[in-house]
Formats: sequence, C-alpha cells, structure tokens
Amino acid sequence: MNKIEPRTLSGFMELLPLDQLKFNKLYDAIKSTYEQFGFLPLDTPIIEASEVLLAKAGGETEKQVYQISRGDSDLTLRFDLTVPLAKYVAKNYGFLQFPFKRYQIGKVYRGERAQKGRFREFYQCDIDIVGDGELSILNDAEIPYIIYTLFKNINIGAFVIKINNRKLLNGLFAYLNLQDKSVDIMRIIDKINKIGISNVKEELSNLGVIEEDIQKIISFVDIKGSNKEIINILKNLAYMDNETYKEGIEELNQVVTYAYDFGMNDDYLMIDLHISRGLDYYTGTVYETFLKDYPELGSICSGGRYENLAEYYTDRKLPGVGISIGLTRLFDKLLDLDILKEEKISVSDMLIIPMTDNYEYIIKVYNNLVKQNKRLQIFYDKRSIKSMINYATKLNIPRVIFIGDDEVNNNTITIKKLDSFEQKTIKLDEIAKEL
Amino acid sequence: MNKIEPRTLSGFMELLPLDQLKFNKLYDAIKSTYEQFGFLPLDTPIIEASEVLLAKAGGETEKQVYQISRGDSDLTLRFDLTVPLAKYVAKNYGFLQFPFKRYQIGKVYRGERAQKGRFREFYQCDIDIVGDGELSILNDAEIPYIIYTLFKNINIGAFVIKINNRKLLNGLFAYLNLQDKSVDIMRIIDKINKIGISNVKEELSNLGVIEEDIQKIISFVDIKGSNKEIINILKNLAYMDNETYKEGIEELNQVVTYAYDFGMNDDYLMIDLHISRGLDYYTGTVYETFLKDYPELGSICSGGRYENLAEYYTDRKLPGVGISIGLTRLFDKLLDLDILKEEKISVSDMLIIPMTDNYEYIIKVYNNLVKQNKRLQIFYDKRSIKSMINYATKLNIPRVIFIGDDEVNNNTITIKKLDSFEQKTIKLDEIAKEL
Repeated sequence: MNKIEPRTLSGFMELLPLDQLKFNKLYDAIKSTYEQFGFLPLDTPIIEASEVLLAKAGGETEKQVYQISRGDSDLTLRFDLTVPLAKYVAKNYGFLQFPFKRYQIGKVYRGERAQKGRFREFYQCDIDIVGDGELSILNDAEIPYIIYTLFKNINIGAFVIKINNRKLLNGLFAYLNLQDKSVDIMRIIDKINKIGISNVKEELSNLGVIEEDIQKIISFVDIKGSNKEIINILKNLAYMDNETYKEGIEELNQVVTYAYDFGMNDDYLMIDLHISRGLDYYTGTVYETFLKDYPELGSICSGGRYENLAEYYTDRKLPGVGISIGLTRLFDKLLDLDILKEEKISVSDMLIIPMTDNYEYIIKVYNNLVKQNKRLQIFYDKRSIKSMINYATKLNIPRVIFIGDDEVNNNTITIKKLDSFEQKTIKLDEIAKEL
Repeated sequence: MNKIEPRTLSGFMELLPLDQLKFNKLYDAIKSTYEQFGFLPLDTPIIEASEVLLAKAGGETEKQVYQISRGDSDLTLRFDLTVPLAKYVAKNYGFLQFPFKRYQIGKVYRGERAQKGRFREFYQCDIDIVGDGELSILNDAEIPYIIYTLFKNINIGAFVIKINNRKLLNGLFAYLNLQDKSVDIMRIIDKINKIGISNVKEELSNLGVIEEDIQKIISFVDIKGSNKEIINILKNLAYMDNETYKEGIEELNQVVTYAYDFGMNDDYLMIDLHISRGLDYYTGTVYETFLKDYPELGSICSGGRYENLAEYYTDRKLPGVGISIGLTRLFDKLLDLDILKEEKISVSDMLIIPMTDNYEYIIKVYNNLVKQNKRLQIFYDKRSIKSMINYATKLNIPRVIFIGDDEVNNNTITIKKLDSFEQKTIKLDEIAKEL
C-alpha cells in the first residue's frame, strides 16, 4: 500500500507527551487562578457564522481568517476570544449576572505567515469583567493583581506589568489638535521599542505631524520615574487641562494606588506611557506584560479597558476590562529558553512490573492502590526487566513495584525508587502507610 | 449602526456559565481518571492536511468533513481523534515509549444533519493503548475497568459495559462461508436494537444470506445467560471449530476473567453477542456502554481492539485497544434527564460585599484570603445589598462577607451563610480558623 507522509502543518504546535504535560501544568495554573478569582468558564464554538465573527473586523483580520464553505453557509474559525464573548453576552444578556466575569481558554486561528514562534493555531487565555452600563475602576486594578498572583505562582522568572491609560494620550492629542490622527499615532508610538525612536519620528512625520508636536509626543511618552513620580509629573503638566487628560490621571492614579493595596509594588507594576496597544478598541487602562530577563519576547499578556464590548450586536452599553495570555507562544518560548527544561513531570507515580503470571495477585495490588486514588499503571506486555524499568525512567515515573512469586507467596510487594535505587519489600497491608 | 444578530450556529453547543461548570466537572473527572491510569495527554491540531486526515476515509466521512481552502493548501478539520493519533504515532514513533498510552479530549467536527442531540462540533474523550508489534490481552480488560472506575465515580446512575469479540462473529461467518459479506452482516446485526429483528432478517436476506444461515446468525447472537454461561455455551458449539472462533472465545474468556479480578461483575460487564461496532477497523474485543435507565441514549462509550493503527502512514504493525466517550452528546442528555439538574456548583466560595469605601481594609481582607488559596471575589460596583446578595445566590456562591465601617473599626468581618441565614462577626486573625 502507498503510504501517506504523517506530517503536521507548519504553524501548528504538536508536542511530545512529556512536553504536553508541562504545557498542561501551565494551562491548569492559569485556569485555576482564573477560577480562584471568580471567573466563570465559557466554551464557545470554534466555528461561527462569518457575518457574526467579522461584524467588526477590518482588512488585516479578514485576510488572515480561515473560512469554510459548506453548502450555502459561510463560516469562519474564530481568530480571538473577544468577538465570541461579545456575541455571547449580547445573545445571553438576560441570563447573565453582571458584572459578568468570564474566562475562556481555547484555540484561535490566524493564517499568518508561518515562522518560528508564530502560530496559526494557538491558545488564548482570556479574562474579562463586563459591566452592565458601568464598571468600577477597581476592576482595572484587580486584573493586574490576578496576573501578578498567577505569574508569581508559576515559575517564569522576573516579570513586570506595564500600565498606561489611553485617556492620557488622547488628552495630549486633543491638546495638540491631533484627535483625528490619534489611532494612527498610537499605533506608531506603540512600536517604539521595536523600531526605535528615529523610525517613530519618521513615521509620525509621514503622517503629517509637525516637528514640534512630534517632540512633545516623544518627550511625553518618555517621562520616567517611579509610579508616584510619574503621576506627579503628569499632574503638574499645567498646559494639559482637558477633561480626558484629567480623567486619565485620576484613573491611572486609582489603579496604581489600589494595586499597592493589593500588595504589588513598582517592580511588578510600572507606568509606561509608551504602552498604547495597537487596537482602537481600548479606551482607558491598557496593560502589557514582559519577562524582565527576556524582553525580546515582547508582551506575553496584554489587555485593557473598553467602553463597549458588543456594539455590533446590541445597543446596550457593556463596558469591560480584560487581559489575555498568548499561551502557545509563551510556552514555546519558555521551552526554548530552558526555563521549563529541568522540570520532570510524570503522569504516574508508580509502575507495577509483573515478574509472575499470577495476575490475580497483581491486579489485587493494583486495585488496592487505585482505590486509594494512586496514579499508577501495570506493564502488561512481556519484556525484560531492564526495558520495563527503562519505560518508567523515560516517562519520569519515580517508583516501580516488583511483583514476583516471592511477593505472591508472602503477600508482599517490592518497591524500588528509581532515583536512589533504594528498594524494600513490604506487606500488602502496609501499602497505605508506605505509599 | 445596523446590528448583526448575535447567533450561534445550530449543532454547536454553547452553554450558560453554570451549565458550563457542570460540563467542566464531568470533563475534569474524565481527564483525571484517564491520567490516574497512566495515560499521557495529547493535543493534536484541529486542522490537518486533507491528504493526511482522509488517507483512509470512505464516502460517508468525506461527505461530512469541514474543508478549508487557503491558497493552494487543502485542509480539513479533524472528524475524530483516532486518525490524528495514527498520524502522531507514525510521525513520532522513535520518541514514544511503547505500549504508548495516550488520552486526548478535544473537539471534532462532522457536518451531520443538525437535529436535537446531534452535534456538528463535539468533544470526544479517547484513551488508547498502542503496542509496538504486539499488545497483551490484559489491556482489553483494563479498558472497561477504567470506564467502570470513572462511571462509578461520577454520578450518572446504573450502567453496563457490553462486550463481545469480533473473532467469534468472524468465526461464525467463516463456518457459514459468508466471510466476503462479514463487514456488511456485522453492520446489519449491530442495528438489531434500533431496527428490530424482522428488519435485520430482511436486510440480511437482501444481502443474499439464505434463510437457514440467517436463522443460525440470529440464534447465535441471541445467546443469553451470565458471562460464564455464555462462554460455556460458546465453547460447546462443537461445529464451530475454526481457529478464529477459538481465539475469540479464549480472548473473551480472558477479558471477562481479568475483569472479575479487577472487581467488576456481570451487572457492569456483560457479554452481548449483538455488539459488533459498525466499523471494519475493529478486529477483536469490542465495547459499548449503556445507561440502564436510559437505554434509548444508545452507547455512550464505545471502542475496541484493532490490529493496525497506522497502516496508511507506516509499515510498522501497531496493534491497539481504545475507547471513546462522546462527551457533548452525553452531557446534553444528562442535562435533559435532570440527572445533573440538582447539582449546585459555584466557581467562588464567598463574595465580599463592601459597605464602606475603605478599600484599603477590604483589599487587605481579600488579599489575606487569596493567600490562603480561597476562591472568592469582591463586588466592586455600587449596588443595593439586596442585588449583591442576589448576584451571589444566582451564582450559587454559598457565603457573603460584609465589610462596613464597624468591621473596619473593629478589625472584623461579618460572614453570612446564604442557605441558613446564619451570620457571625469574627476577628480578622480568626479568618484562617473560621473559613
């Protein structure tokens, strides 16, 4: 028979089992932290009607989506978890409690050019808090606190959540009479760490911003200091007296102050006036998160405050604040960087190695351990002891249990720890105590 | 602005949050049981190259798949988890330990006619044990033991795993010289409970099976009794002396005997000679699982032994045995049948209700509880006490914590249990003891 090459598409992550265990550990930590903070799970379909999913989408998104034609239906694979959330809240409004706190961890699809570290199928891990008409600014402080708690709990090294408020930038643009260019300007200054200051200046100039205003924008976003120092400087920019700007300062100040109450400090939460997020979607607080030792990864967790989640589906005003971890890309990098390499995770705590055909006894032992909720397995196929121990070693299983005729006759088992080679034989009724 | 109707496609399950919590509980029970028994997690892509995914597929499958065209690539959404497993094992053979035990829980896609209880996107929860060249029959007994352990642990009522061995049927067909029709005959007798005996007779007759043979087939698959009785009757059918048949009896007898060792009995594991599974893929043991009180659901968990997992991708012989739970359909039915209706699950154990603006104190309490890994949330928006309690009640949150000026001044919190209305005020340093 002609064989088909068993290949996996490029841009699609498919892990070996022990790496998958590491991935799942990270996944579970994210999930349980999100739940600890009261977020309800959602699991929306991966396929939606194109008109629903692309209600808002612009040119770039449309080019990247995976579309399916089946009969006369026009279907699209979701490209993020925010649009499905908007649809869900609009659709189920009457059945939800507000503020509606939901998390969703799921795969999304973007047909980007495949390259190292870029994925076409990847997990996003989102939390959002959606209000009905209004939503307290305290939620904007809660979001970084959750990410802080999560990233402290998992072992990914030093990190910092950078924070800004788009009202500050919009206030600045209003002062400079550049409101009509604000989205474009934000998109350009957002790239400052990627493309450098001279390129940013050039792009702003190409956009028609005059030299004097470029200088003002650059020196504004470059304001440095501790969070409290920055807020003081911002407050003292006397010429900036429009309402948007004042709201921005007030909100940023509140978020930082509450974040301190939550136990965070400037090492973990840092005002950075460059941060604006590319999307025009955000209207207030914005977040990006960086690993301090690996800034080249870019932001591993981003989000912000928005005015109106679901305006394409409903007239109800649904403001919210949320953040998203790009898990697939983050995990891929953590593997690359050896941060996860040392970790030994196993799905089983022990492997029973039969050295007799008395399976009645072997199964009795197994059954006994299963009932105690032990995680274990029996190696059923006939192999050499060496190759069975090798199986355990390769799968990081820390202990093997030998059962031979001696053990059957004496009602015992022999336990061997594979790291220390320590071995002992115990009575069956001592199992619960011993293991 | 014109609004788009926020709809979800038919045939796609999208749950309300509290139902999603119930779904996740079932999902987690399946996952943790699979892991307890030593199965390694896999997470293969949902999209694969069409030539890979459809290497084996026949007409019906091809008609049902979702295909995507992007540039010159021809892509297909997976329609089961077995074909991706075959690809994975063939691709990663050198990196895997055999027997390779893997589970995968994931969404699959079939464009079936949408109707109540039929889904186009649904979860399959698969375990397979794949050998390299050979695989012990003990694994065929382990599989129902795992399902038995799982279904005993989750509250889904009385169930029975029905078991058969296709070698018995193939032996019978060999004796009747009907080998060339065996796949079709099995497909027909597999439907006996759905379409009734007279329709089965008619279909067999249409297939060209003579009346006398139809009688023999029907009386064979109708053999009834305890497992041991059935095996004795099968052994004593003196005219059936071909090797395939004898192997079938031997294997079935071993599986049943080991299953008894595992602690199962005839209430939970029952030989049923009708069971043959439609697919020509299976070669030995086959399983189907039924809820005794709801036989109309059909099999909720099916599988079997196969000779050769990956013959379309590799020359290596990779025999295996596996089983799959159709989770979406099962969950949908359990919801319908009120089996899950009473259950109250919450994502949070408590809700803090602020009755003061002293958020420094409120956050101090919150932080204290978060550090103890409590699952809780603060209601930040300003609402009436009644509506905040209503929020907790609607989300099944069992306790609220009131913090007002009295609590701030006295360094206390007031805890109220929402079911009993029991309320008490405790000192902050008693929290760990009290909660």
